[in-house]
Amino acid sequence: MALEPFDAIDVIAAKRDGGAVPEPELRWFVDAFDRGVVTDAQMAAFAMSVRFNGMGRDEIRVLTSAIIDSGERMDLSGLGRPTVDKHSTGGVGDKITLPLAPLVASFGVAVPQLSGRGLGHTGGTLDKLESIPGWRAELTSAEIRERLRDNGAVVCAAGSGLAPADKRLYALRDVTGTVESIPLLASSIMSKKLAEGPDALVLDVKFGSGAFMTDPDLSRELAETMVSLGEDSGVRTVALLTDMSAPLGRTIGNANEVREAVEVLAGGGPADVVELTLALAREMLDLAGLPDADPAAALRDGRAMDAWRAMIRGQGGDPDAALPAPRESHTVRSERSGVLTGLDAKAFGVSAWRLGAGRSRPDDAVAHAAGIDLHRVVGDAVAAGDALFTLHADDAARFPRALASLEGAWRIDDAAAGGRPPRVAARIDANGFAPALSRPADTALPFPSGTE
Amino acid sequence: MALEPFDAIDVIAAKRDGGAVPEPELRWFVDAFDRGVVTDAQMAAFAMSVRFNGMGRDEIRVLTSAIIDSGERMDLSGLGRPTVDKHSTGGVGDKITLPLAPLVASFGVAVPQLSGRGLGHTGGTLDKLESIPGWRAELTSAEIRERLRDNGAVVCAAGSGLAPADKRLYALRDVTGTVESIPLLASSIMSKKLAEGPDALVLDVKFGSGAFMTDPDLSRELAETMVSLGEDSGVRTVALLTDMSAPLGRTIGNANEVREAVEVLAGGGPADVVELTLALAREMLDLAGLPDADPAAALRDGRAMDAWRAMIRGQGGDPDAALPAPRESHTVRSERSGVLTGLDAKAFGVSAWRLGAGRSRPDDAVAHAAGIDLHRVVGDAVAAGDALFTLHADDAARFPRALASLEGAWRIDDAAAGGRPPRVAARIDANGFAPALSRPADTALPFPSGTE
Repeated sequence: MALEPFDAIDVIAAKRDGGAVPEPELRWFVDAFDRGVVTDAQMAAFAMSVRFNGMGRDEIRVLTSAIIDSGERMDLSGLGRPTVDKHSTGGVGDKITLPLAPLVASFGVAVPQLSGRGLGHTGGTLDKLESIPGWRAELTSAEIRERLRDNGAVVCAAGSGLAPADKRLYALRDVTGTVESIPLLASSIMSKKLAEGPDALVLDVKFGSGAFMTDPDLSRELAETMVSLGEDSGVRTVALLTDMSAPLGRTIGNANEVREAVEVLAGGGPADVVELTLALAREMLDLAGLPDADPAAALRDGRAMDAWRAMIRGQGGDPDAALPAPRESHTVRSERSGVLTGLDAKAFGVSAWRLGAGRSRPDDAVAHAAGIDLHRVVGDAVAAGDALFTLHADDAARFPRALASLEGAWRIDDAAAGGRPPRVAARIDANGFAPALSRPADTALPFPSGTE
Repeated sequence: MALEPFDAIDVIAAKRDGGAVPEPELRWFVDAFDRGVVTDAQMAAFAMSVRFNGMGRDEIRVLTSAIIDSGERMDLSGLGRPTVDKHSTGGVGDKITLPLAPLVASFGVAVPQLSGRGLGHTGGTLDKLESIPGWRAELTSAEIRERLRDNGAVVCAAGSGLAPADKRLYALRDVTGTVESIPLLASSIMSKKLAEGPDALVLDVKFGSGAFMTDPDLSRELAETMVSLGEDSGVRTVALLTDMSAPLGRTIGNANEVREAVEVLAGGGPADVVELTLALAREMLDLAGLPDADPAAALRDGRAMDAWRAMIRGQGGDPDAALPAPRESHTVRSERSGVLTGLDAKAFGVSAWRLGAGRSRPDDAVAHAAGIDLHRVVGDAVAAGDALFTLHADDAARFPRALASLEGAWRIDDAAAGGRPPRVAARIDANGFAPALSRPADTALPFPSGTE
């Protein structure tokens, strides 16, 4: 066994006692964990110390860089296009990647979207796209480059070669109560994105019941940490803080979300999906050096749709094929009249998951036609007897448990209390935090004002 | 695999978030760790959370009880004698068990001293006694009972059947930066002592450079925690806080410490060893229901020596045999005149260890004749050229490194600054903390006054 330059106990103790771990020690610690010299127990003790004592900005940069160095870095130079990546922390009904990637690519930008599979109540982008007959998620590195060069947009499975230490570290944190740590979350997310080697990065950091991190203040802290980390790593980074308290759009599932994404690409679709798609597109185009690009026009005039069709065909899919249809459906109607004032994103996410749209274990299959269509969304008027939403499944036996998770998950009042707030609540870049200008004055901001 | 009633992540999260872990969950967590269901990584994350958030008095009792339940409990009933155990947190030159056990036993009390081996700079009682030709540390449970019934005193190796979960837990804490936690230290020490099933327990909790826990305030907290834990577990418990900044007595090693113990049993010996032996003996006799017993008389009139000889013979040893003599010796003399005002216990402990008196790994052999004899102790006058101390080893090649660790480890001033403080600084029982009455007014107490 080779002589190790440092002792794991000293690294743990430094963090435990509130100090910063020097760069050589921290790099060694991650590398030695990857080699099995630092044990799972030692890494768990370290992660718990980070959970308590946090990490400085420079420590987070070094940790992330060390995690990236456990694997390969993609080389996206020589594509002849600027590359801008986008990452969402995950939400219910979040199909934004589907219209966004081809929309931005239609302006000549390369958009590499390397994704994981969905697990639990937030759906996976790859699962949604696999509703399309023939479409395949697995591409080689050469194929990714080719698709980016030819089409600009590619959405595919992240290979195991990117930041492999993150995978082991996350699995360990998942069973040791050390997931909820801003520095560890930020380095986990960003290690995979930075390993892709983009020129710039736009983050969609969500808060609210359907988000991984429900608390707005913690989401803001995570976003600020990731923006600093991206900038410190030489990648221009912007984050939008977005509201995930109600499902995004009118569909939750897989095939139905693809259908809704195509509506947006055809110039229609739900207002909130369009709002968020355009907001993220503007940030990505701005970072790509195209501040005057008009993404709304590209949705209207068919350029975005053309890019979508090219993207789907480029990965073997048939954009004109019929999507899987559900075998069983069950519609829930309103018992009273009024205005729909709340739809709990988490409950609808769990319900869709119980219908078969998501998976419990990584190797479960997904029912592509399963999910929920919303006939009314927050702010809509409702009459007694109106259809509120329809559940879809391959097997009617799934309805009772799916319905049970929806108990108390929507709210109808006599009148709306101030209109529907926009999805984008705030924007964070290297210069700091700014509440979204478009937010109406009469909706309560989830962030205290006057702190910037 | 049997269905588990709780989830390790919930137990970790409860402690991480500052709450108390309920008794059933905590008992299950320790048991599941013992069965390998809770992983090392999960226990390390839990231990680090305890390191940060502490544990309540009741949690410490439950944790300790669960650790005891991982093994067997000794049954010392039916001996026809009260049983009083003693534990020391370990120090340099700490041979107190050797005169103390037979001294207390000479009054008809059973004193079971189940010990571990020494590791690092504090010596092990079993290693010291193994200097005596024929003496054996390994006894069966039946032999332990027989010795206790016949002689009263027994000093032997703790079997692996007592609190086995503690052994695994301690090994894990040792490599994950979670040793220094009062609740975990207290439960580790007390689980082994309480598993022996004594009627009462006296603790010698040390502070100062040669102690495991150098800080007096932390030692006091550890002592108070252990006294509460003993009382809560139904065992009357008293602790003495004792000063371990200078080596105890005039010998550090194995055979030389036995020689010094025999001097004490013969009515002589260094003042501090006699002081601490008598102070601990008085506490043990008091807890045994013998408040009027006079242990000093038993040292003077030979009763303690008789009990010692019976104890050694009872385990195969020859109390009259010659002890191993060192092959090589090296004496250090003073370069100046004055008064010896300081001897750093840690440095002398490390030096004796480097001479071969201690071991680095659990299966190392110990050189029984190796060690250090002090010719002057703190408070003694010194003339230039006087012998200060003599190092002993089986191999002269050990002297340079042993001497190196003694650099700056003693101090000679023109005059003494207030006399030699006594070893016993304070006493803690179920009623609380009390500074030792015998402590001279002109020596600074290591504890703030007026806090009780």
